[in-house]
Amino acid sequence: MNHDHELRYPEAQEAIRPLGEEVPSSVPRQWYNLNADFPEPLAPALNPATDEPVTPADLAPLFPMGLIAQEASTQRYIDIPQAVREVYALWRPSPLRRALRLERSLGTRAKIYYKYEGVSPTGSHKPNTAVPQAYYNKVEGIDRLTTETGAGQWGASLAFACALFGMHSQTWQVRASYDEKPYRRYQMEVYGSSCHPSPSRLTRAGRELLARLPDTTGSLGMAISEAVETAAGDPRTHYALGSVLNHVMIHQSVIGLELLDQLAQVGESQADIVFGCAGGGSNLAGLTFPLIGRNLREGGTTRFVACEPAACPSITAGEFRYDFGDVAGLTPKLMMYTLGTDFVPPAIHAGGLRYHGMSPMVSHAIHLGLMDAVAIDQDHSFRAGVAFARAEGIIPAPESTHAIAAALDYVTSSAVAGEVVVIGVSGNGVLDLPAYAGRNRT
Amino acid sequence: MNHDHELRYPEAQEAIRPLGEEVPSSVPRQWYNLNADFPEPLAPALNPATDEPVTPADLAPLFPMGLIAQEASTQRYIDIPQAVREVYALWRPSPLRRALRLERSLGTRAKIYYKYEGVSPTGSHKPNTAVPQAYYNKVEGIDRLTTETGAGQWGASLAFACALFGMHSQTWQVRASYDEKPYRRYQMEVYGSSCHPSPSRLTRAGRELLARLPDTTGSLGMAISEAVETAAGDPRTHYALGSVLNHVMIHQSVIGLELLDQLAQVGESQADIVFGCAGGGSNLAGLTFPLIGRNLREGGTTRFVACEPAACPSITAGEFRYDFGDVAGLTPKLMMYTLGTDFVPPAIHAGGLRYHGMSPMVSHAIHLGLMDAVAIDQDHSFRAGVAFARAEGIIPAPESTHAIAAALDYVTSSAVAGEVVVIGVSGNGVLDLPAYAGRNRT
Repeated sequence: MNHDHELRYPEAQEAIRPLGEEVPSSVPRQWYNLNADFPEPLAPALNPATDEPVTPADLAPLFPMGLIAQEASTQRYIDIPQAVREVYALWRPSPLRRALRLERSLGTRAKIYYKYEGVSPTGSHKPNTAVPQAYYNKVEGIDRLTTETGAGQWGASLAFACALFGMHSQTWQVRASYDEKPYRRYQMEVYGSSCHPSPSRLTRAGRELLARLPDTTGSLGMAISEAVETAAGDPRTHYALGSVLNHVMIHQSVIGLELLDQLAQVGESQADIVFGCAGGGSNLAGLTFPLIGRNLREGGTTRFVACEPAACPSITAGEFRYDFGDVAGLTPKLMMYTLGTDFVPPAIHAGGLRYHGMSPMVSHAIHLGLMDAVAIDQDHSFRAGVAFARAEGIIPAPESTHAIAAALDYVTSSAVAGEVVVIGVSGNGVLDLPAYAGRNRT
Repeated sequence: MNHDHELRYPEAQEAIRPLGEEVPSSVPRQWYNLNADFPEPLAPALNPATDEPVTPADLAPLFPMGLIAQEASTQRYIDIPQAVREVYALWRPSPLRRALRLERSLGTRAKIYYKYEGVSPTGSHKPNTAVPQAYYNKVEGIDRLTTETGAGQWGASLAFACALFGMHSQTWQVRASYDEKPYRRYQMEVYGSSCHPSPSRLTRAGRELLARLPDTTGSLGMAISEAVETAAGDPRTHYALGSVLNHVMIHQSVIGLELLDQLAQVGESQADIVFGCAGGGSNLAGLTFPLIGRNLREGGTTRFVACEPAACPSITAGEFRYDFGDVAGLTPKLMMYTLGTDFVPPAIHAGGLRYHGMSPMVSHAIHLGLMDAVAIDQDHSFRAGVAFARAEGIIPAPESTHAIAAALDYVTSSAVAGEVVVIGVSGNGVLDLPAYAGRNRT
């Protein structure tokens, strides 16, 4: 038998050619863009050099035109390319489940549903945007993407997306995570991508940081600098960001669009209240924006709660103002809830929620009163996560436990019989199991 | 808000009461039992004291009557209790996917499908039997189960099943794995179960082993002794086994039953050849037995290949004879392919395939010529796993890579255009990522 299985990766256009697979109609055909329905327009991102709104030309060295167009779009629905839908179909539609065991264990008469993104190949909602980001780059002939990652969820998801379109990603991972949590790095490598500890000797920024701070364990801000520098210096390399930006919020809308369909399928005319965890905002936006849009267009009354960690409370304790997206001040200035770029969140387990700011679109929704927010203590969130795991059988990601805790608080205090409560479970906690260790009592 | 989420576990009968959820019709209503269709009956298990066939009374101290009845059954179809179907519905039907990207990368005109069990809450096929095993014990008032585990896949799956029926499991894990691979132990603890390193000071067997071999890193045989001793000494505690026995093979038939339906749905009249990995045999049996039954009853021509590790080749290099299922000789004697109970497999990464014997039902099928077998080298299997991950986006369990490698060998050497090739992907490799480290080149 032939023992030689080298993959013969097709050329660029071949890689984005649809496979001709029939994609189930339950996988959305279009993304939803809340920028079409906001009662007041979003404040623009500003070029930090001029304080003028950023132009497509400002963004072109780092992003493909397909994504730049989405970043500025006010079109309500944007077609999802067929090649992206075919990849989505590997795990989408993600399940919406009634949490009957959890209801029974709590003794509640509210109806608890959860929308579960942990079924994706990398275990979270991140591939929802990694796949189209890889696709739109490949369309324009870009074969290599750079990015930064903390715990590695985003880096692994981008590596997954790149593998499927015959691309390569380089991820700079905060050195502390690189050394202590190697699983996601192994994942990136299996997908044929690479992962470097940051700061690294591969970039000027990294070398300067190592000269100045030889013992640093790194930070997301340092890793961004290395990823951006590398992309800016090579015309065939672009940069990818896993949250915050408008195009990311648009891609994640598949979550909420499916939720609307799935609620209708089980005979619920609408959700009464939706809980989602909030870090950079992409999971929350994806879960809620299609429902917020329906509220605005059709007079729905669904309420929304952004659940953030008490240790990094950008919405509940931050200011709504222009600030930089990154620590080094390289990005455009964004109008958002922020704790300030010098805020250093403590080392909580929900690495995905450790961000000083909040997506401008989520911030705008909150500023307009379209969404509430609550801050949740880490120990409390893990207790809720354990209760959820024992009742429903799924161990949620530490990020997701914030939404679960807030929802259980609500159900056990305020909910009325028959009320429809939806929890966004943004990922599974399989690679975060050490964070659960010793938390085995509810 | 109320910060107190203690679960109020219902009493035994409440725990197995169906939730009244509508389970999709694509989740099987009955298990299939190949013992109804074998052209010659299976040789019985023997009581090691008498060499007479084991009786239900022999098994009653360790197993509930519901499972003992299945162990001896020759009924073709056995109803799946509604409470079990409701739990299955958390992840079943598991997906059958056409591997179009893999076909494209290989340049083959064969049609490759894979049946993917990695979507279960613990990431493998093991919950397919853990759930009914917990259920039938709970029905008979048993609240506690003991078991042994190597890498932890089975122990975590049993803990998951116990959580959902308000039960507790105690798992003895081979000390080497307990110390080096703690993730699955954390999983068991989140589910409210416990995990002990074996040998432990909790049992007489463990204490004697530690006195004799103070530095031992343990073995599956030692762990079985501790689990069986504990169950035998407490009338409210039973023992559970994750493979080998007939009732386990029956429970796993949901895989192959779904496969038959799913192939029909995509317009394939039958599979031409099916590849499944073989350790104790439960994944392989589940995948293939419903199709073997169809071959026997309806004259189908599907071929089957058991894919075992070259390092532990019980079928391809073992003998077909009566042997003990465990190292200590505590279990009934089983008629099976075996390398002998003193065979110590090397420390390959596919921990789930490191078993000296093979399920009697799988052994019988092979002995009757209903299935072929092939031994696969570990490096070769990982190369196939990496190729699969990069094409299909899913990182397979090390066990599953054996089936993938054999299938790719076949496709790249012998398959003809249009041939329908099915690969059983028994689990995901998320918690096995360290085994992939350094294997990032196909």
